[in-house]
Amino acid sequence: MSYSITTKDIEARRKRDGRLVAGTAARADIGSFKTFSGWRELPKARRWDHLISKESAAREPCVLKKAAVHLKKPGLISLGGGLPSPANFPILSMGLRVPNGETEFSDAAAATEDGGAATQMGKYDASQPLGATSGGSGPAEEYDLSIALNYGQAAGSAQMLRWVTEHTELVCQPPYSDWSTCLTVGSTGALEQALRIFCDRERHDALLTEAYSFSTALETAKPMGIRVVGVELDEQGLIPESLDNILSGWDVQARGGTAKPHLLYTVPSGQNPTGATQSVERRHAIYEVCQRHDVYILEDEPYYFLQMPPYQRDRPAASSEPAPAQTPEEFLGTLVPTFVSMDVDGRVMRMDSFSKVLVPGSRMGWLTASEQIIERFVRHAEACNQGPAGFSQASLYQILEKTWGHEGYIKWLAHIRESYTQRRNTLLDACEDHLPTSVVSWTPPTAGMFHWLRVDHSKHPEHGKRSILEMEEEIFDQCIENGVLVGRGSWFAAEPDQPPAGLFFRVTYASASATNMTEAITRFGDAVRKTFRL
Amino acid sequence: MSYSITTKDIEARRKRDGRLVAGTAARADIGSFKTFSGWRELPKARRWDHLISKESAAREPCVLKKAAVHLKKPGLISLGGGLPSPANFPILSMGLRVPNGETEFSDAAAATEDGGAATQMGKYDASQPLGATSGGSGPAEEYDLSIALNYGQAAGSAQMLRWVTEHTELVCQPPYSDWSTCLTVGSTGALEQALRIFCDRERHDALLTEAYSFSTALETAKPMGIRVVGVELDEQGLIPESLDNILSGWDVQARGGTAKPHLLYTVPSGQNPTGATQSVERRHAIYEVCQRHDVYILEDEPYYFLQMPPYQRDRPAASSEPAPAQTPEEFLGTLVPTFVSMDVDGRVMRMDSFSKVLVPGSRMGWLTASEQIIERFVRHAEACNQGPAGFSQASLYQILEKTWGHEGYIKWLAHIRESYTQRRNTLLDACEDHLPTSVVSWTPPTAGMFHWLRVDHSKHPEHGKRSILEMEEEIFDQCIENGVLVGRGSWFAAEPDQPPAGLFFRVTYASASATNMTEAITRFGDAVRKTFRL
Repeated sequence: MSYSITTKDIEARRKRDGRLVAGTAARADIGSFKTFSGWRELPKARRWDHLISKESAAREPCVLKKAAVHLKKPGLISLGGGLPSPANFPILSMGLRVPNGETEFSDAAAATEDGGAATQMGKYDASQPLGATSGGSGPAEEYDLSIALNYGQAAGSAQMLRWVTEHTELVCQPPYSDWSTCLTVGSTGALEQALRIFCDRERHDALLTEAYSFSTALETAKPMGIRVVGVELDEQGLIPESLDNILSGWDVQARGGTAKPHLLYTVPSGQNPTGATQSVERRHAIYEVCQRHDVYILEDEPYYFLQMPPYQRDRPAASSEPAPAQTPEEFLGTLVPTFVSMDVDGRVMRMDSFSKVLVPGSRMGWLTASEQIIERFVRHAEACNQGPAGFSQASLYQILEKTWGHEGYIKWLAHIRESYTQRRNTLLDACEDHLPTSVVSWTPPTAGMFHWLRVDHSKHPEHGKRSILEMEEEIFDQCIENGVLVGRGSWFAAEPDQPPAGLFFRVTYASASATNMTEAITRFGDAVRKTFRL
Repeated sequence: MSYSITTKDIEARRKRDGRLVAGTAARADIGSFKTFSGWRELPKARRWDHLISKESAAREPCVLKKAAVHLKKPGLISLGGGLPSPANFPILSMGLRVPNGETEFSDAAAATEDGGAATQMGKYDASQPLGATSGGSGPAEEYDLSIALNYGQAAGSAQMLRWVTEHTELVCQPPYSDWSTCLTVGSTGALEQALRIFCDRERHDALLTEAYSFSTALETAKPMGIRVVGVELDEQGLIPESLDNILSGWDVQARGGTAKPHLLYTVPSGQNPTGATQSVERRHAIYEVCQRHDVYILEDEPYYFLQMPPYQRDRPAASSEPAPAQTPEEFLGTLVPTFVSMDVDGRVMRMDSFSKVLVPGSRMGWLTASEQIIERFVRHAEACNQGPAGFSQASLYQILEKTWGHEGYIKWLAHIRESYTQRRNTLLDACEDHLPTSVVSWTPPTAGMFHWLRVDHSKHPEHGKRSILEMEEEIFDQCIENGVLVGRGSWFAAEPDQPPAGLFFRVTYASASATNMTEAITRFGDAVRKTFRL
């Protein structure tokens, strides 16, 4: 069964629901934020008890938060939890200057009356009528600093959970009923929490991932005693046949006692470091292999909205005309469907992040997964971080909810994708112009921030005498000498004790200026030429 | 060797140091923020390699952050790390309205021109002269949103680390040379990270703590397979003789294979739940026992600055006259010295938090410990949270650094302590007036937010027939019936499988109004009277 909803549907549901009443540390009812009216009739997710670690299984609900159930009793006075009084918070109001979500999104535009909006959140906005200080009497706001800056639920505030739940339904339409969401402190932390749910040191658990993978993910898994197993990839990312082969032929003894893996970590769009994006067919095939071998999927999608049109060397110059207006649904239609959208079993935990599309410093993202997994995750969050900061929740609420709305946010995403597309084009142009194509080859990325360069080590004058790692170091050192920092392929090897599959470098087009990108690629090309004596 | 510094000394050092230059993801040099000129001559901390867990020992530095060392090379262009360009951050500026730190601190005062200050942080304040948009040419700011909201070091920004290092030196004067600091996402998360540094499931590690302890701390330790061992406490908190007895008589076999503990978790001031505060003599005695048994100390001090004068029933009415002005040094002189201040071995990790004295929603605190331990902690933070949110760091910077300074912050702390003192007095008055002292007894707390009530279970009409836990439940249920929520003593038992030492309830004076506190205590008294048939 499939369904779809639009931003208009969300607006209509909001109107029916009326004002969200959610005070300090209020629990959110995620179901109440779903717009598709038939969600309760969808099949339920599978249970994952057999995969859950000893540590995670042993987590009990926080006793003080459990006691909060009594707070519903009318007239009850709590001397229970030690929540400070907001009278003692030294912040009366917080304001942001942001683009207004209507016209242009540039810094310059945001600084003007036309293109910018000044948002403001007061300490008591949710408990007094709008404009109360100036004699007004509008309805109160739904969120304020007295709520955002006090202790809250580790899952996040109801106000932000409503927003991410709606956005997730708009983007993913999960095909099972008990899908849920919770906020995270960013996907880096969310991954560590996920690994602690699914992996036991004593059980000798393993983690499947792309043969070249996000280095921080690898660095997170290893100290926990998790054996990382690399799956081959091509220009469409992880290869399902390789995944199937590894799982079908798994030999515990030959693997030194490591149990057959039941967990896959993958970055489907603009994979870090290879830049590869899985097609929809590829995703379906991977999902099917995971179903067959009972593998749970951690879908990490920081770059999902940075999916770009294919790179073309000969293209019309970037126009100063605004791009034709797209509806939110048209924009979303250009994106490869998510794993969650095909997740009939509820075997996917999707990690979304605001880091790459808003600001990394929010240290805030969110999960989509079945209620069982979200509940285990939140139990851990109560101990390890208590959810994202109130300052972040208050700030993003002001931008996403009060200034942009869902439609404005999608416009922002389209703007950001356009910005990264131009950056990618600049870098790819420089590669075509300045790299020795006799030894350096690549596939133009269609998502994300990274470009993966393969250097043909067999053409190195000392091929056979020098190892790939030695050549990598030689080129890297020459790059530094030439004044460019690039990522060494070996930094991203899922199994660094195995011989490398090739000689690779990762470059990013995320932040350098156009001039600097071109200069940097020239320097990289010179380093390759010098070491390969071309 | 002991030393002391003042806020004036800090100001003088700052002046000598000049402008702090620390851009995006800059590493902080903690030593450069120390004011005591002789710190390098102090003895070094001991090494704790023998206590560090397998997981923590296996953590290697983040490869991408290591590569950042090359960024120092002049003229180098980085295509290395995927840091987004701040041009893509949709926030031009952020402003807060806060009390100005000079006169009054109330909401009402902060809303006025006289008592309030409007602070502002722009995106590029650190890279353009002050007032550049209006033609000005002052020196640039030291911190801005382009830095705060990008990826940063997991240890925290140099700008905030300078502040907490100075504050720590002012308060603690650590007596060893290689003490260091790093930011945390709050002490709840910091404790979990600390436990993962010092405890191994396979090693059957144990954690010593007060027999009644912070429930979230207990809930953090247990799923990790850590055996919690309760140490007896009295009105001055943890009893060193009890600690010594447990350690001296430790029998691994009798303890079911649990190794002799090497880790103590303690809340020295206003302990949660008992409200007890360790005297300076008590702290010295505890430290000495820990030295003798090679125990590392986790000092959790959320309530340190909420140390109050002793409670007196007959006291002058709260005066509307401002209290006599105190210098920062006078205020700090009223506080019991910290464990860090007596930590000649570097065996203490102190956890400080802004939650109880500024806002919980900052999800930001900091650690003080030896460089070795801070380094292990930060390695983990790189994987599990990447440090506190940039919105929090930017907000607290605006309040602490730009508006208050160290002296203003100490004034704020004195204000908050006064506010809690009045709250405590109200609650204690109500206890004297409304509780049946024939069965309920207590020691007035001199710090924190909690008050611990002992009910004499031997006076219960069904004493001998009913267990303490049954009586506790009966009273709790009657409390709910009467309309008051209190904490049950058993929620805080370090070893819930052991018979309880008594019948206890925890009440907080943190947030209820004076009227509600009095009413709530009356209801609690009625519940006790009813169940005890008084």
